[in-house]
Amino acid sequence: MNIVLFESSERAGPLPREDERAKHILEVLGRKVGEAFDAGIIDGPRGRATVTGVDDVGLSFQFEETDPGLELYPIDLIVGLSRPQTNRKILQEATSIGARSIHFVVTERGEPSYATSKLWTTGEWRRHLVAGAAQAFSTRLPEVRFGESLADALARVGGESGKIALDNYEAPEHLMDADAGDLSIVLAVGSERGWTSPERALLRESGFALAHLGERPLRTETAASVGLGILARRFL
Amino acid sequence: MNIVLFESSERAGPLPREDERAKHILEVLGRKVGEAFDAGIIDGPRGRATVTGVDDVGLSFQFEETDPGLELYPIDLIVGLSRPQTNRKILQEATSIGARSIHFVVTERGEPSYATSKLWTTGEWRRHLVAGAAQAFSTRLPEVRFGESLADALARVGGESGKIALDNYEAPEHLMDADAGDLSIVLAVGSERGWTSPERALLRESGFALAHLGERPLRTETAASVGLGILARRFL
Repeated sequence: MNIVLFESSERAGPLPREDERAKHILEVLGRKVGEAFDAGIIDGPRGRATVTGVDDVGLSFQFEETDPGLELYPIDLIVGLSRPQTNRKILQEATSIGARSIHFVVTERGEPSYATSKLWTTGEWRRHLVAGAAQAFSTRLPEVRFGESLADALARVGGESGKIALDNYEAPEHLMDADAGDLSIVLAVGSERGWTSPERALLRESGFALAHLGERPLRTETAASVGLGILARRFL
Repeated sequence: MNIVLFESSERAGPLPREDERAKHILEVLGRKVGEAFDAGIIDGPRGRATVTGVDDVGLSFQFEETDPGLELYPIDLIVGLSRPQTNRKILQEATSIGARSIHFVVTERGEPSYATSKLWTTGEWRRHLVAGAAQAFSTRLPEVRFGESLADALARVGGESGKIALDNYEAPEHLMDADAGDLSIVLAVGSERGWTSPERALLRESGFALAHLGERPLRTETAASVGLGILARRFL
């Protein structure tokens, strides 16, 4: 946690003493009354917060804005719904890297049941976004959708963006060499066992170029992170 | 698991029925007697194996070489020893991406106790290499060391290689723009909280250029994977 993030409703404090952030501020950062720590408001500004009081019940603080916070990159990630543990990593890492949206789609080689895991039904997914943003010293969370079909997501996401799908089998060039314009990019990453032929055809009809990351098939979460990390360079 | 890997001592079979690979071959791949699956010998060739018998005790098979298997990239990773869960991901992902060696070093902001975790003391670490190779359809495992000091690793690893250290604070350019020659590369990635000033000085004295992956601090394992994924492009 490189920055402690608050919901805007929490901005006036206090934090319950048992809240993980209170423990982090007091036990990991070792802050005492009168001392400050890096803080931010989710989807809002960054700043410094000063501890104004600590008791058994809570930690109070005063937050002062310093800057508007990092913007997200104009990169949308479409990724095959995977096992919950894989989805958790993707939520966190794609947020850290700075994608502006993540769309977990049902693919032919995925499991539709993955859309009903408690990651989604309990709202747990949002915690991974907050953790990913806090890691990256950022306040902004990507938009997230899950459970849509690949076809529906392709029809809805991206508009005039450059469009690239990672593929190990039919891609003519490396992602680093793929031309996707400099406006905004949609990156599509398949489920664990990759795209089927009909999915590849659908991607091509939807304007996606295929690109690879070398000849070694990577796990979905590794491919998503490496792919996003490469594309982010275009918007620095 | 995109390829089932055997130690060379296991090449003649049979696999115990309870071995994870036997379960994978029978239950996930659904292979029956007479049917074949992709297989490889660790640090040896790839090929096809045909199931020749299954009973309550074991699965026997016959392996036939088809090709020598993928080579590893001439990339050495030096990375700060981290929590075991982070190290596990690095072992697996760096192997999948194709690094030829991984050196987990003690850094000023790491915890020396991380070198005594059961990940290392039980030999568990090697399982993650095998899993990473199997994911990447590869048979070759990187060399792994752990517990050395950063200074000792810098003195020992790399020789005439290009040398790049990831850094969020003083790096003048993105990793994708860094010049590291085309012979071989050492990539150094810090522990969770990055390099100290003395470590940065040591890296520079040891011939390392500093490079970044954008302005967002990433988790050690994310930075390692994105960094290796970017560098691998140079050797395709």
